[in-house]
Amino acid sequence: MIPQRPDVESPDKTGTLSHDWIVGFVDGEGCFHVGINKNDETQFGHQILPEFTVVQHERDINLLHRLRSAMRCGVVRRNHGDRFCWRVRDLKSLVQVIIPFFERHRLKSKKGVDFCKFAKIVKKMVAKEHLTEEGFTEICRMVRTMNTCKRKEVRLKRESIPE
Amino acid sequence: MIPQRPDVESPDKTGTLSHDWIVGFVDGEGCFHVGINKNDETQFGHQILPEFTVVQHERDINLLHRLRSAMRCGVVRRNHGDRFCWRVRDLKSLVQVIIPFFERHRLKSKKGVDFCKFAKIVKKMVAKEHLTEEGFTEICRMVRTMNTCKRKEVRLKRESIPE
Repeated sequence: MIPQRPDVESPDKTGTLSHDWIVGFVDGEGCFHVGINKNDETQFGHQILPEFTVVQHERDINLLHRLRSAMRCGVVRRNHGDRFCWRVRDLKSLVQVIIPFFERHRLKSKKGVDFCKFAKIVKKMVAKEHLTEEGFTEICRMVRTMNTCKRKEVRLKRESIPE
Repeated sequence: MIPQRPDVESPDKTGTLSHDWIVGFVDGEGCFHVGINKNDETQFGHQILPEFTVVQHERDINLLHRLRSAMRCGVVRRNHGDRFCWRVRDLKSLVQVIIPFFERHRLKSKKGVDFCKFAKIVKKMVAKEHLTEEGFTEICRMVRTMNTCKRKEVRLKRESIPE
């Protein structure tokens, strides 16, 4: 059999995404973010919204779909302009899929520190701790210590995080 | 023996960087760039400067050193402000280390298309083709078709690329 020359003219569009590749890509492009938005209908006037996102230019939307398929959760949506994101917001997917994955396959960048805080917050929410004043205050305190990828945006939002 | 609970409080600072992790991280954060700078001392009035870079905030400078150690080439330097980069510029390292690595371990994002053009240009330079008018013109044509990560900066520089 004559060995075939690998096709290096175009990116690898179809192969499996290995765990290590996913960790490397998320170390670069992922974001573990906890939004705290004003919402008068909730108990403490604010809603806590954890989300995991990976944003890409639309030319790599296929890669976002592959990530979603590999992890079997989340949605691919337009983020803004020509940017799309793979986004996981629901607590069940975060606590059953995303968090265990990055606990088993550790991030190598400082994003790993944010991930740990993110995981603790999500677990507190699953345990309904955010519905007590003490739990809610503790989560807000943790969110303020997170460096997120969307620093500017978050700095603005942070002004509204209750002390 | 009692199994130890893995330390998930801090990022993985010391483990080996696997090939797949490096590919994933470069799919996110790497840049294959070919600069064409005016230089009256060169044959055609321009110097062709291929470089491979990974830029990170200074908090992850350790990761850049680990990449440099894993690939055994390049330098870690301040890029601008609080950003640092691992940068490989010398043709020997590009053609003997970086290019063979990404030919064996294929990028999954559209960055792979740029990588192929980058690899062709570097190989032409090693073969001294850029010293002929035909080769120089062909390289300039290829550079104009590259989407790079530093789009704005490159758009400005492109105005000076000879037709």
